[in-house]
Amino acid sequence: MHHSRLWLCREHFNKFIENRVMRTIKRYNLIRRGDRVLLGLSGGKDSVVLAYILSKLRETIGFKLYLTHLNLGIGEYSKKTVEIVRKISEKINAPLIILDLREILSIGIPELALKTRRPPCSVCGVVKRYLLNALAVELKADSIATGHNLDDMVTFILREFLVQNLEQIPKLAPRIEGAEDYLATKIKPLYETYEEDIKKYAELNNIDYVEEKCPLADEKTITSSLKKHLGILENKFPGLTIGFIRRFVKNLEKYPKPRDTIRRCSICGMPSSGEVCSFCKITQKALGKPMGPYAREYIREIVRKSITDY
Amino acid sequence: MHHSRLWLCREHFNKFIENRVMRTIKRYNLIRRGDRVLLGLSGGKDSVVLAYILSKLRETIGFKLYLTHLNLGIGEYSKKTVEIVRKISEKINAPLIILDLREILSIGIPELALKTRRPPCSVCGVVKRYLLNALAVELKADSIATGHNLDDMVTFILREFLVQNLEQIPKLAPRIEGAEDYLATKIKPLYETYEEDIKKYAELNNIDYVEEKCPLADEKTITSSLKKHLGILENKFPGLTIGFIRRFVKNLEKYPKPRDTIRRCSICGMPSSGEVCSFCKITQKALGKPMGPYAREYIREIVRKSITDY
Repeated sequence: MHHSRLWLCREHFNKFIENRVMRTIKRYNLIRRGDRVLLGLSGGKDSVVLAYILSKLRETIGFKLYLTHLNLGIGEYSKKTVEIVRKISEKINAPLIILDLREILSIGIPELALKTRRPPCSVCGVVKRYLLNALAVELKADSIATGHNLDDMVTFILREFLVQNLEQIPKLAPRIEGAEDYLATKIKPLYETYEEDIKKYAELNNIDYVEEKCPLADEKTITSSLKKHLGILENKFPGLTIGFIRRFVKNLEKYPKPRDTIRRCSICGMPSSGEVCSFCKITQKALGKPMGPYAREYIREIVRKSITDY
Repeated sequence: MHHSRLWLCREHFNKFIENRVMRTIKRYNLIRRGDRVLLGLSGGKDSVVLAYILSKLRETIGFKLYLTHLNLGIGEYSKKTVEIVRKISEKINAPLIILDLREILSIGIPELALKTRRPPCSVCGVVKRYLLNALAVELKADSIATGHNLDDMVTFILREFLVQNLEQIPKLAPRIEGAEDYLATKIKPLYETYEEDIKKYAELNNIDYVEEKCPLADEKTITSSLKKHLGILENKFPGLTIGFIRRFVKNLEKYPKPRDTIRRCSICGMPSSGEVCSFCKITQKALGKPMGPYAREYIREIVRKSITDY
C-alpha cells in the first residue's frame, strides 16, 4: 500500500482495511451497539465493499444492517445493477429493499431529467436523497450509511473550497446528525479509506460490483478532473489526503455554519430548505402533481411487506 | 488569452494587462494618491513587470515609486540579478536601493542556512521579510508592493487549506494592513493577473528579467506540484483561478482570525510573534550575536545616503 509503505498478504490486507473502517466508526462515533443501519447500495465498488465489511463488523459492534437499492430506471445499466445487489444481499445475509423509481413515478431518471430540463445527475441526486431518507425514516433506522470514500470526500471538500461555498463544507463531515422523525443521520464509514484500497479489497475477496459508470454521468466535470489530479498528488506525496481529512475533521467547527435552516416540506413533511421540497417540486413539474406523499406511502407499504422484524 | 477567450494585438494586450492591474489597485484600495510605494524587486519576471507597469501608472494615480533589491549573496545568480535590477531602475526612472546581505551580516544565504541547519528557502524568507520591512519603515513608505501573481496566490491559499492552517489564510489577502511605525502594509498589485500573461507582457515589451530559478530552491515541494496541477486545471476550465480568487476575497472575513498577536522584538523593536524576532534568533545562532539592531542602523544609513527626497 503506497500511502503506508506496507506490503501485505491477502489476509493481513483484509485485516488492515477492516480495522481502518472499524477505527473510523469508533473515532467518529458512526455506529453504536443496537443501531439499525440502512446502507445505500448503488452496486458500485464502494457501497458493495462497505456492505461486505459492515456485515463482518455486525457481530463485534452489535448492530442491524439493512440494505437498500434504488432502481433508477436507467435501462440495461439498472438491470445489471439490480442483479448484483441481490447477490450481495444473499451473500452477506442482510435484508434488501429495492425501491423502483418507475413503480413510484411511472418514469425513470432519463425522462425526469428531460421533462424538468435539468441535468440527470442533479435530478438523480434529489431523488436518491429523498427516497433514501424516506426509507430510513420509515425503518426507524438510526443512520444511513453511504459508500463515499476518502478520495471522494477530499474531492468534494476541495470543490466546495474552490467555489468558496464555505457554508457547505461542514456538511462533508463523517457524521451528519439528523433531526427528530423526518431527517435521518448520515454516516460515511469509508471516510478514511483510499479508493485504491477498496478496489484491491474487492479484487482480493472476489466481490462482484458494477464496473461501468452510469451512462448518464458527465465525466467532464471539474469534480472528476479534481479527483484525477488529487490522485496524482497523493501518489507523489503519499499520505497527503488522509492527513488532510484528519486535520479537516478537527477543524470542522471553524467553518461558517450553514445558513439554510431545515424545515418540513408543506406537502410531504420531509426535510426541505424552502416551503416545498425539491422532490415535490421536480415531480410536480414532470408529472403535474407533487409525488412526495405518494412516494412515502409506497415506501411505508413496501417496508411493511418486506421487513419481518419491523 | 485563454482565460478570457480574447485575441489581442500587442497594444491592446498591454492595455488589457495594465487596466487589470489598475482595477486590482482600485478594487482592493492598494495604492492611494500621494503614497510612497516600495517595490521589492527580486529580478524575476513578476517583480520586474510589476515595476514596469507601476511606473506607467505613477502619473495617473499620483504616487512615488521606490525600488529595492536584496542581494542575498548567492554567487553568480545574485550578480546577474543585480545587473538586471539596475537596468530596470534606469529604464523606468525610479530610485533603487540595493541591500547587500554580505555587507550587513558578512555572510550570505547559503552560509546562513548551513550555520542554522535550516532549509535555505526558510532562512531566506525570514531575512527578506525582515530587511524589506525595515527598509519600508525607514523610508516611511505607505506600503511594500510585491510581485506575487494570481497563480502564486491561489497555490498558497490551497496549500494552507490542504494543511488546514485556516488561520494563515486571511494573511493571503491582496492588502495586509501594517501597524504604527514598525510594520509596513503589504500590497499585491498582480493579485488578479495570470502568470502566463505576465510572461507574455515581458516578451512583448522586451523586458529583461532573470529567467533562472534560484539555485538553492527546492523544486520538489508540494507547492510547486500544486501550482503545476492548478495550471492544468485552469487550462481545462478557463477562468477557474480568477473566479476563485475573487470569491475568496469576498469571503475573507469568514475565516478564523490569526491567533498570533504581533508584538515588538525585545532586541530590535521590529515585528515578532514571540519575545525575540526570527531575524535576531537566526543571526544569533549563526553569528553569535542578534543582528537586528545593526541591520536597522545599516539601512538607516543607506537610506540617508541614497534617497535625495527623504
